[in-house]
Amino acid sequence: MKLLFDLLKKFGVSGDEQDTTNFILEYIDKRQRFWNVQPKVFFGEEFHDCILLKFGTPRTALFAHMDTIGFMVRYENQLIPVGGPEFIKETELVGQDSLGKIHCKLIGDEDSPLHDFPRAIERGTRLAFSQNVRIDEEFIQAAYLDNRLGLYTALQVCETIQDGWVVFTTYEEHGGGSMPFLLKFIQETSPVRQALIADITWVTEGVLPHNGVVISIRDKFIPRKKFIDKVISLAEKSGIPFQLEVEAYGGSDGREVQFSPYAIDWVFVGAAEENVHTPDEKVSLKDLQSMIEMHKYLMDSL
Amino acid sequence: MKLLFDLLKKFGVSGDEQDTTNFILEYIDKRQRFWNVQPKVFFGEEFHDCILLKFGTPRTALFAHMDTIGFMVRYENQLIPVGGPEFIKETELVGQDSLGKIHCKLIGDEDSPLHDFPRAIERGTRLAFSQNVRIDEEFIQAAYLDNRLGLYTALQVCETIQDGWVVFTTYEEHGGGSMPFLLKFIQETSPVRQALIADITWVTEGVLPHNGVVISIRDKFIPRKKFIDKVISLAEKSGIPFQLEVEAYGGSDGREVQFSPYAIDWVFVGAAEENVHTPDEKVSLKDLQSMIEMHKYLMDSL
Amino acid sequence: MKLLFDLLKKFGVSGDEQDTTNFILEYIDKRQRFWNVQPKVFFGEEFHDCILLKFGTPRTALFAHMDTIGFMVRYENQLIPVGGPEFIKETELVGQDSLGKIHCKLIGDEDSPLHDFPRAIERGTRLAFSQNVRIDEEFIQAAYLDNRLGLYTALQVCETIQDGWVVFTTYEEHGGGSMPFLLKFIQETSPVRQALIADITWVTEGVLPHNGVVISIRDKFIPRKKFIDKVISLAEKSGIPFQLEVEAYGGSDGREVQFSPYAIDWVFVGAAEENVHTPDEKVSLKDLQSMIEMHKYLMDSL
Repeated sequence: MKLLFDLLKKFGVSGDEQDTTNFILEYIDKRQRFWNVQPKVFFGEEFHDCILLKFGTPRTALFAHMDTIGFMVRYENQLIPVGGPEFIKETELVGQDSLGKIHCKLIGDEDSPLHDFPRAIERGTRLAFSQNVRIDEEFIQAAYLDNRLGLYTALQVCETIQDGWVVFTTYEEHGGGSMPFLLKFIQETSPVRQALIADITWVTEGVLPHNGVVISIRDKFIPRKKFIDKVISLAEKSGIPFQLEVEAYGGSDGREVQFSPYAIDWVFVGAAEENVHTPDEKVSLKDLQSMIEMHKYLMDSL
Repeated sequence: MKLLFDLLKKFGVSGDEQDTTNFILEYIDKRQRFWNVQPKVFFGEEFHDCILLKFGTPRTALFAHMDTIGFMVRYENQLIPVGGPEFIKETELVGQDSLGKIHCKLIGDEDSPLHDFPRAIERGTRLAFSQNVRIDEEFIQAAYLDNRLGLYTALQVCETIQDGWVVFTTYEEHGGGSMPFLLKFIQETSPVRQALIADITWVTEGVLPHNGVVISIRDKFIPRKKFIDKVISLAEKSGIPFQLEVEAYGGSDGREVQFSPYAIDWVFVGAAEENVHTPDEKVSLKDLQSMIEMHKYLMDSL
Repeated sequence: MKLLFDLLKKFGVSGDEQDTTNFILEYIDKRQRFWNVQPKVFFGEEFHDCILLKFGTPRTALFAHMDTIGFMVRYENQLIPVGGPEFIKETELVGQDSLGKIHCKLIGDEDSPLHDFPRAIERGTRLAFSQNVRIDEEFIQAAYLDNRLGLYTALQVCETIQDGWVVFTTYEEHGGGSMPFLLKFIQETSPVRQALIADITWVTEGVLPHNGVVISIRDKFIPRKKFIDKVISLAEKSGIPFQLEVEAYGGSDGREVQFSPYAIDWVFVGAAEENVHTPDEKVSLKDLQSMIEMHKYLMDSL
């Protein structure tokens, strides 16, 4: 779990994913010699802050987003949300501008969030939830489990995967924008017809902690039934605990697969959390385990 | 009209268009020998559930969507809309899950639609309006005239068309997603600069039954004036009854032409209906006739 | 400033940019012999009503939208907005249909805008704010400074630019639609990794007249921090007055760069105006000067 703890400490508010990118690149560099298959690694300015790993001959691409929600400093001590953070008064925020490190509290109200830092913070500075990882036998609780658990899952998949793309994306929390060029590169380099989204969803009346990884039949958008049926049928064979989600709202990198100019089927596969988009996101460790196993299994079987 | 009645009976809630696709493929297979020109037919997993017909040397592509609105079963007896179905209490719904056929009623209210089926229905099961086709000398009334009339029109166009693409799309009712890859395929196979959308619009204070097919100057999105002017000028020459629509809302597959990476002009041409997105959609038979004639004429003249 | 006055007189409500396009093409034809570098000019039906100028070997593309907001005539004397015009009762509107010129007033209310022209106006006719240019030592005030000042800036950049694309786009005010095919053409002809948006933004509590051109750190969408930091660092070196904007709302052609299938960084650089989307848009002449200088500088330095 050291890797996960390291990931949880990295800064990555949408549009400023560099720290996370660099950490993952370093990890890949050190760790890949132990992987079953050595991937071809694509990164650099041509890919902005994204990373693509090509293992063997891909049939499926797995996507995990590196960015987190947060706030951006506007004028005076005003804040604007990046992505959809929950407004909880007194939440501790951290960041950095050219004058130094910032540690402050979220004040004001939901419509006019403010910070209480004694000096002016430079316009456009990003602030993230202060991290506080708590773990017991059943649960992990921290800020940004969405989507540090997706990154962790993707890197666990790398250990054993034979064939497939593993892709680290940016901007997912704030409307997207990296998926279109990543998909174009994938389809022009080694095309696929299937995509798995490794991301975190919500605990609801129909999706409960400890009941297994969630396979989402729909969120705001709807994957093709023929493909979902195939995924569910494989999941049943796998013996790995899973539960089915049907939601009217929410989205993921899958949305950009749906609207891409490629006929690629997609499905969201990820653990459910409580306290979504707060510093206290909480996920069952069993569900995280199922998430990792299911992604490994599906990358292998699909 | 047997073809239309057959189309009206097929299931095709967005994301699960397979039955409709298969029916159209079988129809094309049987019928194409009677068409003026034999098309090249593109379909299969590479195109998900879509179908493209290439006749001669296309200048224009005609698009008709195969999917319908409906509901999806969430948890307990909850329903989530697919597309934008009107909530009308006691509406009869039909579908199927692995335990068998489903016939039930829509209950609850607009914000929390429910079904009254005595047993649990599997998560993610799609339900459609029960079909009840009524026809008299003036009108046809049924569920899913939107867009079974578009499919019917497209297949009538196939009888006489010399040059053009006729394309059957998916997902239109729920935000789209097939148009981008269809347009890419078209532009890379036999490109066009013009697109006709064969779909159904609304009766309003400015668009009345029996007054002819609607040529839409705009809905939420706005086709290029230069092209609309050309279409209207041809329509006037044609002698076919038509009326002009100007709306602030609504969309069609034309939206995805507008936002595609191709400079393709588009226009919506279709009959207007009453009781939109209910089981009682009602269209003037004269307007349907004008719709078919106008699409034939425009595919020929543009 | 004659060029700017001429631009301000042209009609160009989204979807009907032809007059503006033709004027700019004629201007380019007459003026380009005086430019430092002769560009390759791309225009015509293949590009709808857009124009692309390729100077030297581009590293960056500058985009300025040619369209304006306005109204479209619906049924009876009803109007529908094109883009987001402010409703101000008694505003003078002008346009033309096949029966002749139209000069009328905006009446009704915000939810049901009407015109008071004595005769029926043809469905789909576009109406624009009547133009009234006012200029003094400090400010220019007129309808459609957004984005006639962007066009003016782009054409001033043409005087001295060595390398780069200068692109005149359509439809920006009404959701876009030309950027995708323009970007595709650019990337397939002479690709770039950087984009400047020459457009007009808002005076707010943090952005004031006379304080220099605005470099926007974000609007509804968020450019990549790494690129914005580079732009700001260059702007500081330039000595040209500028101010930094951080907004939660608003968009520009930059949005379509963000969501394009190309890894292109983008930034909005433009003067701020008061009385946005009214006939009385007001911009500081100093800020206009900074806007022109900054675009020249950035096209050169980036």
